[in-house]
Amino acid sequence: MIKKVLKFGGTSVGSIERIHHVAGIIKKEFDAGNQIIAVVSAMSGKTNELLELSKKISKDFNKRELDVLLSTGEQVSCALLSAALINLKLKAKSWLNWQIPILTEGEHTNARIINVNVSQIDEFLKFGVAIVPGFQGVSKSGDITTIGRGGSDATAVALAKLFNADTCEIYTDVDGVYSSDPNKIPVAKKIDKISFDEMLELSSLGAKVMQPSAVQTAKIYDIPLQVRSTFTNRIGTKIFEQDSIDYSKSVTGVAYSKDDAKITLVGVEDKPGVAANIFEPLNKAQVNVDMVIQNISSNMKKTDITFTIKRDDLKKTIDVLKVNKNIKYDSVIQNDLVAKISIVGAGMVSTPGVTYRMFKGLAEENINILAISTSEIKLSVIIDEENTLKAIKKLHNIFELD
Amino acid sequence: MIKKVLKFGGTSVGSIERIHHVAGIIKKEFDAGNQIIAVVSAMSGKTNELLELSKKISKDFNKRELDVLLSTGEQVSCALLSAALINLKLKAKSWLNWQIPILTEGEHTNARIINVNVSQIDEFLKFGVAIVPGFQGVSKSGDITTIGRGGSDATAVALAKLFNADTCEIYTDVDGVYSSDPNKIPVAKKIDKISFDEMLELSSLGAKVMQPSAVQTAKIYDIPLQVRSTFTNRIGTKIFEQDSIDYSKSVTGVAYSKDDAKITLVGVEDKPGVAANIFEPLNKAQVNVDMVIQNISSNMKKTDITFTIKRDDLKKTIDVLKVNKNIKYDSVIQNDLVAKISIVGAGMVSTPGVTYRMFKGLAEENINILAISTSEIKLSVIIDEENTLKAIKKLHNIFELD
Repeated sequence: MIKKVLKFGGTSVGSIERIHHVAGIIKKEFDAGNQIIAVVSAMSGKTNELLELSKKISKDFNKRELDVLLSTGEQVSCALLSAALINLKLKAKSWLNWQIPILTEGEHTNARIINVNVSQIDEFLKFGVAIVPGFQGVSKSGDITTIGRGGSDATAVALAKLFNADTCEIYTDVDGVYSSDPNKIPVAKKIDKISFDEMLELSSLGAKVMQPSAVQTAKIYDIPLQVRSTFTNRIGTKIFEQDSIDYSKSVTGVAYSKDDAKITLVGVEDKPGVAANIFEPLNKAQVNVDMVIQNISSNMKKTDITFTIKRDDLKKTIDVLKVNKNIKYDSVIQNDLVAKISIVGAGMVSTPGVTYRMFKGLAEENINILAISTSEIKLSVIIDEENTLKAIKKLHNIFELD
Repeated sequence: MIKKVLKFGGTSVGSIERIHHVAGIIKKEFDAGNQIIAVVSAMSGKTNELLELSKKISKDFNKRELDVLLSTGEQVSCALLSAALINLKLKAKSWLNWQIPILTEGEHTNARIINVNVSQIDEFLKFGVAIVPGFQGVSKSGDITTIGRGGSDATAVALAKLFNADTCEIYTDVDGVYSSDPNKIPVAKKIDKISFDEMLELSSLGAKVMQPSAVQTAKIYDIPLQVRSTFTNRIGTKIFEQDSIDYSKSVTGVAYSKDDAKITLVGVEDKPGVAANIFEPLNKAQVNVDMVIQNISSNMKKTDITFTIKRDDLKKTIDVLKVNKNIKYDSVIQNDLVAKISIVGAGMVSTPGVTYRMFKGLAEENINILAISTSEIKLSVIIDEENTLKAIKKLHNIFELD
């Protein structure tokens, strides 16, 4: 008897037809003798619709009530999917966050699952399918909480852990993790196996297949994941711990994001505490600084500091720099027409020349590198946005990902 | 310190602007020193939208899951209204059915409220406004239940009883109970005071201001009600126990419904048990038979039986009559182009000539009466649908309701 947690995302339950289709997948799994816990997201568009409503009431909508509001999205999906399964003559039942309960801690709209009562559902799984809303839980004080956007992945991983499930399968609208965005790079290849760390880098760097925090949790608890399509029968991508991965390839994938902006402060005093003076107020203003590069200036007492931020934060960042008199510099150069391109691979650290090959490849295409940042398993560069596609294609080609 | 239960219907919370407006009403009441429990319906159209979704999944949608689905409508209203109040610097909090809890018994989609835990909310009312979803509760087994369409009125009355509230005010989209439908009869007059019994008859007979079952509960527990408009400052209609009502008027209002149909079975055997043979299978098929009239036939061994049903049940009724071989008759006459017109008044029973005046008035307008039914405080007739307006106007005039 295999116990499976199956997670179905917003597009997978985005219409009546799709809910019937998902019911068919679950019935097949159940009829094959598996015990099934299905975690469902809100129907696609639903959460945004509720968020829009909340913004119309108040731009400062109370967070406890926002959780009450948003949690209805998954509740609707649960009821519809359960009824569709019952219609297929299966015993199925929706279990809402407080009925299980799924206990969380932490603040509203950003809570964490800390425990789940498994006994009732485990008993029920002997003869029926349990349908559970993703993205939500209930606090010790009995308030509904949500665990952040895309949190249904995190719910699936937490349930897989706490129910001691054999597999955790993330059903979505793509048929796996790709070496790059298949919509942009037609030669992008589906990755069959990937490590948690690589997946973490890829999802942090713009691949939208899974939420980074859910991958993180799966890594911590060593829950092997499988990302697969709701709409095809293809096998998907397996995500698991590094030591069981084939390292014959140094680079697993190329990620990119176009929502970055680059700022250079020219002529900053070159003395201790200057960087802190710059980044402390940005941190207070909740600006997330990504890459930081400090160049040696020609004037030996001054230096240039370049950093990247989310493009949405550009105006706020410039405002903070202007208002804060502790930050001294000659001028600011801002550029929001940049893209971040990253290569990711668990084998990179042990493969010499990856960095060199990347820089050489970009140079061959006449692509100027504006900033560089590295970690053990990834290498990111900032380039002009107009070169994005050319860069991805070249890197794909160099590292034989086609 | 006055404790008030205020109920806001679907149109009262039907848009963001209206929710802000309702928040304003509540703030005014709170600032005046009152303790406020607000019961809210789903935003207008929302429950029907969810019902449509359920029908697309299955015509036989599981009832437990239907309750899970439908209860989200009021949950959304609760969150939006609470946040709107918090935005006005009030302490406000949504209390969901299971958080209170509102305990129910009876089957899914048709449960009854049997108890409510008042202690937590009573404590909260000392400094804040409690927002409670209408129409729903939780069963002893911990499942969400709903209490039937329009059940938010029943929730308000039950809470008024169990919280020992001083008043129960039903805010709606009309400014009170009218002597007849003001949209159809421009001279219809708002009734200032009406007895529970009269209100019960009026609401059972088609006046859509309040759900009959809620009025019934208010009568049983002697909870005075006030029906008033969310959108004007007019006083509304007070509904309370009969012995405190002014009987100077024999007839309080004229109600009508156009959703009836009339069936006559011609040539039924005139012997004991025949009526039971006809109505038992209809009862089993859940056809609600309203008026029954048995005429003496010219053939002394046979009789004609006429009865009225909801128009929606016409096909089902004819099917039952055809299938059931215990029911013997010569022919069936069916007519779905009928309307039921009723005059209602607590003073009718003690005022001679009301019946005569009604029949004479209809005759003067050449309106044929197809069936008659009476009770202590109402008199209903079935007439051809095309005469509805003419009949209402005439009765209004006769009984000086203009």
